[in-house]
Amino acid sequence: GKLFVGYNVGMKWFFAFLIGIGKLLLLESYIRINISVENFAGWKFSLTFNIIQKSYLAGCLIYILINLALVFSSVYIITQFAPAAAGSGIPEIKGYLNGIDIPGILLLRTLIGKIFGSIGSVGGGLALGKEGPLVHTGTCIASLLGQGGSTKYHISSRWLQGFKSDRDRHNLVTCGCAAGVAAAFRAPVGGVLFALEEVTSWWRSQLMWRVFFTSAIVAVVVCAAMEGCKSGNCGHFGLGGFIIWDISGGQEDYSFEELLPMAVIGVIGGLLGALFNQLTIYVTRWRRNYLHKKGNRVKFYCSKEKEYNDLATIFFNTQDDAIRNLFSAKTIHEFSAQSLLAFVVMFYTLAVITFGTAVPAGQFVPGIMIGSTYGRLVGIFTSLTFLFAYHTISLLTCSTIWCICRYALLGAASFLGVSVQMTVSLCVIMVEITNNLKLLPLIMLVLLISKAVGDAFNEGLYEEQARLCGIPLLESRPKYEMRKMTAKEACGNQKVIDHTRNGETLVIGLMLRSHLLVLLQSKIDFQYSPLPCDPRGGSQRIGHNFSEFAKPVSSKGISINDIHLSSDDLEMYIDLAPFLNPSPYVVLEDMSLTKVYNIFRQLGLRHIFVVPRGSRVIGVITRKDLLIEEETDSTTMELQSTSVRF
Amino acid sequence: GKLFVGYNVGMKWFFAFLIGIGKLLLLESYIRINISVENFAGWKFSLTFNIIQKSYLAGCLIYILINLALVFSSVYIITQFAPAAAGSGIPEIKGYLNGIDIPGILLLRTLIGKIFGSIGSVGGGLALGKEGPLVHTGTCIASLLGQGGSTKYHISSRWLQGFKSDRDRHNLVTCGCAAGVAAAFRAPVGGVLFALEEVTSWWRSQLMWRVFFTSAIVAVVVCAAMEGCKSGNCGHFGLGGFIIWDISGGQEDYSFEELLPMAVIGVIGGLLGALFNQLTIYVTRWRRNYLHKKGNRVKFYCSKEKEYNDLATIFFNTQDDAIRNLFSAKTIHEFSAQSLLAFVVMFYTLAVITFGTAVPAGQFVPGIMIGSTYGRLVGIFTSLTFLFAYHTISLLTCSTIWCICRYALLGAASFLGVSVQMTVSLCVIMVEITNNLKLLPLIMLVLLISKAVGDAFNEGLYEEQARLCGIPLLESRPKYEMRKMTAKEACGNQKVIDHTRNGETLVIGLMLRSHLLVLLQSKIDFQYSPLPCDPRGGSQRIGHNFSEFAKPVSSKGISINDIHLSSDDLEMYIDLAPFLNPSPYVVLEDMSLTKVYNIFRQLGLRHIFVVPRGSRVIGVITRKDLLIEEETDSTTMELQSTSVRF
Repeated sequence: GKLFVGYNVGMKWFFAFLIGIGKLLLLESYIRINISVENFAGWKFSLTFNIIQKSYLAGCLIYILINLALVFSSVYIITQFAPAAAGSGIPEIKGYLNGIDIPGILLLRTLIGKIFGSIGSVGGGLALGKEGPLVHTGTCIASLLGQGGSTKYHISSRWLQGFKSDRDRHNLVTCGCAAGVAAAFRAPVGGVLFALEEVTSWWRSQLMWRVFFTSAIVAVVVCAAMEGCKSGNCGHFGLGGFIIWDISGGQEDYSFEELLPMAVIGVIGGLLGALFNQLTIYVTRWRRNYLHKKGNRVKFYCSKEKEYNDLATIFFNTQDDAIRNLFSAKTIHEFSAQSLLAFVVMFYTLAVITFGTAVPAGQFVPGIMIGSTYGRLVGIFTSLTFLFAYHTISLLTCSTIWCICRYALLGAASFLGVSVQMTVSLCVIMVEITNNLKLLPLIMLVLLISKAVGDAFNEGLYEEQARLCGIPLLESRPKYEMRKMTAKEACGNQKVIDHTRNGETLVIGLMLRSHLLVLLQSKIDFQYSPLPCDPRGGSQRIGHNFSEFAKPVSSKGISINDIHLSSDDLEMYIDLAPFLNPSPYVVLEDMSLTKVYNIFRQLGLRHIFVVPRGSRVIGVITRKDLLIEEETDSTTMELQSTSVRF
Repeated sequence: GKLFVGYNVGMKWFFAFLIGIGKLLLLESYIRINISVENFAGWKFSLTFNIIQKSYLAGCLIYILINLALVFSSVYIITQFAPAAAGSGIPEIKGYLNGIDIPGILLLRTLIGKIFGSIGSVGGGLALGKEGPLVHTGTCIASLLGQGGSTKYHISSRWLQGFKSDRDRHNLVTCGCAAGVAAAFRAPVGGVLFALEEVTSWWRSQLMWRVFFTSAIVAVVVCAAMEGCKSGNCGHFGLGGFIIWDISGGQEDYSFEELLPMAVIGVIGGLLGALFNQLTIYVTRWRRNYLHKKGNRVKFYCSKEKEYNDLATIFFNTQDDAIRNLFSAKTIHEFSAQSLLAFVVMFYTLAVITFGTAVPAGQFVPGIMIGSTYGRLVGIFTSLTFLFAYHTISLLTCSTIWCICRYALLGAASFLGVSVQMTVSLCVIMVEITNNLKLLPLIMLVLLISKAVGDAFNEGLYEEQARLCGIPLLESRPKYEMRKMTAKEACGNQKVIDHTRNGETLVIGLMLRSHLLVLLQSKIDFQYSPLPCDPRGGSQRIGHNFSEFAKPVSSKGISINDIHLSSDDLEMYIDLAPFLNPSPYVVLEDMSLTKVYNIFRQLGLRHIFVVPRGSRVIGVITRKDLLIEEETDSTTMELQSTSVRF
C-alpha cells in the first residue's frame, strides 16, 4: 500500500544519507591512503638521502628495494586476494551501470584489496593515481551498504536488505560513484556530473536529486573532517582547505594573440591523448598475447623505475606536490624546458607501461601531470616567441609568470579531455580543484579542440579498456550499419523455445535465469499435471518469499551445475505463471536497429522481445492519458490558446 | 549513403556553431536591453530628481508617468503583437522539449516582441527579471536558424532547411536554451546543466557534447565582446569582467555554530518559496476567473508601483546594482534591518502580483533579490545573537561583515531552489555568477533543506505555471495511482478505427495528422480502387517530396477546415503505406502504467500502441546482438574472468 511505498522511499533517502555518511569510512580510507603514501614517501626519501651521503650506489639500491617491496606487496594483494581490484575500476563500474552484470567488482574483498593495493602502488612511486581506485571504493561501499554488509563473510544485517532489485542497486551504485568523485577531488558538483556523464547511460531526474543529496552530504562531511584535521595530524589532508590545488587570483587578462598557442595546446593534447590511448591498447594486447596468455592479469614490474625516480627526485615528493608545483607560479625558475621535456617523455612512457598492470591504478593524476608538463612547455615557448617578436616581454599581457601556469592548467585539461573522454564534468572538476573560474572559457575552448582532434583517432581510455575486457558496453552512438538493419535481423541468433500447442510462439512473460534456478533448486513447486494449479494466477501462493530470489550482489549465485534433478523430477512440471514478469518490453520487427539501440541505452535494458508487424492492437496511449488529475477543477482551466496536438 | 550522413552530421555541428555565433545577435539584444534599461533608468532618475527639487508632487507624478508609459508600451507590444511572448517563456520551452507542440512560442514575431517587451517591462521598474526572456530569445534564435529564417515573412533561405524533423529541431532548441543561459548569466557550464536538468526529460550523450560545444562558443564570444566593450560604450555590460557579481575572497572560515542559522535560512527559503508558488497560483487563477474570463492574457497595471519605487529609490538604480549591493560587504551600514524587512515584504508582494501579467517576466533576478534580502536579515540577527551571547563580536569567526553577505548568497540560493526547482544547475550558476567556490558546500546544504521543505507543499513555479497553461507536462515522478494501472486501462478513451476486413485491429503503422492533411490537400494520391497501386510499398512514388511534409515551426500548419473535398473525392481511396511509419513504439497490455510513463519520458514519445499479451514473438534481442564488431580479432580477446550474464 501507500504506507509501504512511503517506507520504501524513506528507506531510499536514508540510504542516500547513509552513503554520504559511509563516505566517512571512505574518507577514513582516503586519509589513510594519503597518510600512508606520504609517510612512506617521507621515510623513503629521508632514508635514501641519508645513505646517499655515504654511498651513492647503496642509496640507489635501497631506494629501488623499498619501491619494489611496496609494488610487490600491492601486486601480491591483487593477484592472490582480489583480482577484481586491479586497474582503475571505472571501466567496470561504467559497464555495471550500463546494464551489464560483472561479477566480483563490488565485493568486500575487492574493497579491501583496492585500499591496500592503492597504498602499495602509489607509495611505490608508480606512474599512476589514486583517484580512480577511490571512486571504485565509493561504489563498493554503496553496494555493500545496500545489501546490508557482506553475505560471504556473514556480517550482513537483516533490516538493511530491503534493496535487492537491480534498479535500487543501480541507483545506490550511482550515488556511491558520485560520492567517490566528490570525496577524491573535493568536487561535489563535479561528482554529480561525473556520475551523469561518464557512468550512467540512462538517468532519471529523481536519481539526480538523490545523487545531489549524497554529494552534498559528502561535501559537508569533508568540510567537517577538514575542520577536525586542522590540528595537523592528518598529514597533507587538512592543507589547502577545500580546494586541492588552489591557483586562483592574478590571472585576469589574456590577449587574443594567446588564443593561437592555446589552440596549439588543444591540438597537442588531442594528439598525445589519442596516442596514449592507442599505445595502452597495444601494450595491453601485447602483454596479453605474449606475457600471459591465460587470464588477464599480468605480473609486471616496472623495470625502468630506477630512471624514473632518478629524475623524479629532482622534482617532487608525491604527485600532489608535483602538480602543485607545476600549477604554481612561484617555481618558474626551477623548471627549465629541458627537464620538463625529459620529464614528460619519461612519465608518458612509464604511464603507458604501467597501465593495465595488476595494481589499482587511476589515470586522472598521471593525466594531469603529463598535460600540465607539456602545457608549461608550450607556455615557455610562447613567452619566448613573444619575447623575440616584440623585443620586450613587458609589452604583453602574457608578461607575468602567471601566463605559464595558466598554460599548465590548459594542458592538463586538454590531455584529460581526450584520454578519459569527459567534457562538462571535467570542466567542473578542473574548476573545483583549482578554484579558478575565470579560465573556464579557455578550458572549454581547449577541450573542444583537443576532443575534436582526439575523436578522429580513437575512443576514450575507459571505453577501449572496457572493450578489451570484453564488457559489452553500449556506446553513446549506435553503429552506422544499424541504420539499415531491422530488429528482426538482429534477433536471428536466439531461439525462443516457448512454443504453445499450436506451434506458434507467443509472448507470455519474461523470467530471469537466476529465478528459474531458484525454483528448480527448491523443487517445492513441482507438480504432476501440466495445467496451472491455480487458474487465477496464484497470488496466494506462499511457497516462496522474495528474499529467496534476491540475487547476492555480483557474486555468481546458483549455477546450473549445482542443481541435481532426479529422473523423476525431470518428468514434473512447474507452473511459471506466478513468477513471470508479464510485461516485458517489446518492439515491432520493422523497427530500425538504431532505434532499438537507443531504447536499450535509455531504458537500460538487457533484453527485448521482437513481435511481428501485423499484431493486433488494443489502443493508443497519448500524453493526455498519462495526466491523471487529482483536482477536477484544473480541467476547466485549460486555455484555448494552447492546444495540444498529437 | 554514408556521404549523406556525414553531410548531415557536419551540418548539425555547423548549426551548433551557428547558434553559438547567433548568440552574437542575442548578445546584441542583451546589450541593447541592458543599455536601454540603464539609459531609461538614468534619464528617469535624473529627471525625477531635477523636478523633485522644485516640486515633490510633480516629480512623483512624472516618475509614475514615465514608468506607466514604459509598462504600457510593453503591454501593448505583448497583447497586440506577440501574445506568446508574455511571461518568462521557460515553462513553454520546458513543455516543448518535454515533447509537446505548443504553437507560436518559437516565431520571429515572438522573438521581437520578447526583446522590446523586456526593455519596457524591466525599464519600467516592475518586479521582474530579464534572464528568463533571454533564454526564450535564445531558443527562438536557434529555432529560426534551424528552419532557415521565418517562413511567414518570406525571409527564409533554402539551404538552411535541412532540419525539419522533430528531433533535429528539439536538439537545436536545447542548444539554444543552454546558449541563452550561458549568455544571460555568463555561466557556460550552468547553461549546459540548465538545459539538462530543467528542460529536457530525455537526453542523449551525443546531445550533451553538442550543447557543450554551443556553450563554449558562447563563452568565447562573450569574452570577445567584453574585450570589445572595454572602451565603455556598452553601458554596464563590460563591467565586472566575466563574473557578474564577483564576491570572491575574504570568506574563508565559518564555524559550526553558524550551521544552525544557515539551516534556518534553508527552512525560511523553503517556506517563502512554497508560499510564493502557491500565491502565484492563486493570483493567476483569480485573475483568470474574475478579471479576464476569456483567454489567458490580462492587462494588469501594478497599482502599487508608486509605493514600490518610493522605497526602491532609496536603495537602488537597477536590479543588477541592487544585487551587487546586497551581496557586497562594503555597504553594511546602508542596510538597516527595518528597511530590509520593509523591502522584502514589498518586493515579495509585488513579485507575486506582477507574475503572470502580459509582459516578458523573468523570475530569476527577483528570486535572487528576495532571497538575498531575507538572507541578509538572518545574517544581521545571527551576528546580533552572537554579540549578545558572547558579549563581544570579535570572538566569533562570523566577526567580519563578510559573514552577512555570505548569508545573502545562501538566502538567494535557498529561495531560488524552491521557486524554480533547480539543484545542480543552480549550484553551478550561483558559483559561476559569484566566483566563490568555497561556499559551494554551504549552498548545497541550504538547497537540500529548503528544497525538502518546499517539496512538502508544492512543485516548482515552472511546473505549476505549465499546468495552469494546460501544457501536459510529464513530471519526473509518475503518480502513485499508476502503479496499479495497466497500459490497457489507460488507453480506454481512444478508438483505433483502422479495422481490417476480418474485424481485427492490426498494427500497420503510424501517421501524423499533419502528414495526412498534406495528402488530403494535395489530392494527387487519390485512386479509385482500394488496393495498393504498388504492391511493393511504392518507393518510386515521386508525387511528393519531403519538404511538403515538413511542418513549419510552431505555426498552426494546415487545419482540417482548410481542406475542401468534393463528394467525388470522398469516394476515393488513398494508399497510405508509403507514408506510414512502419515501426511505432508498442507496449504489452499488462505493463504497469508507471513503466509506460517512464518510457514516454525517457524516449520523449507522444503516443504508444498497446498490443495484447498473447502476441506472437519472433525473437529476443540482447546486448550481444547490438555489439556489431568491426574487427574480428576482438572477439578472440574476450576474457574468462568477465562473463556476461543475461
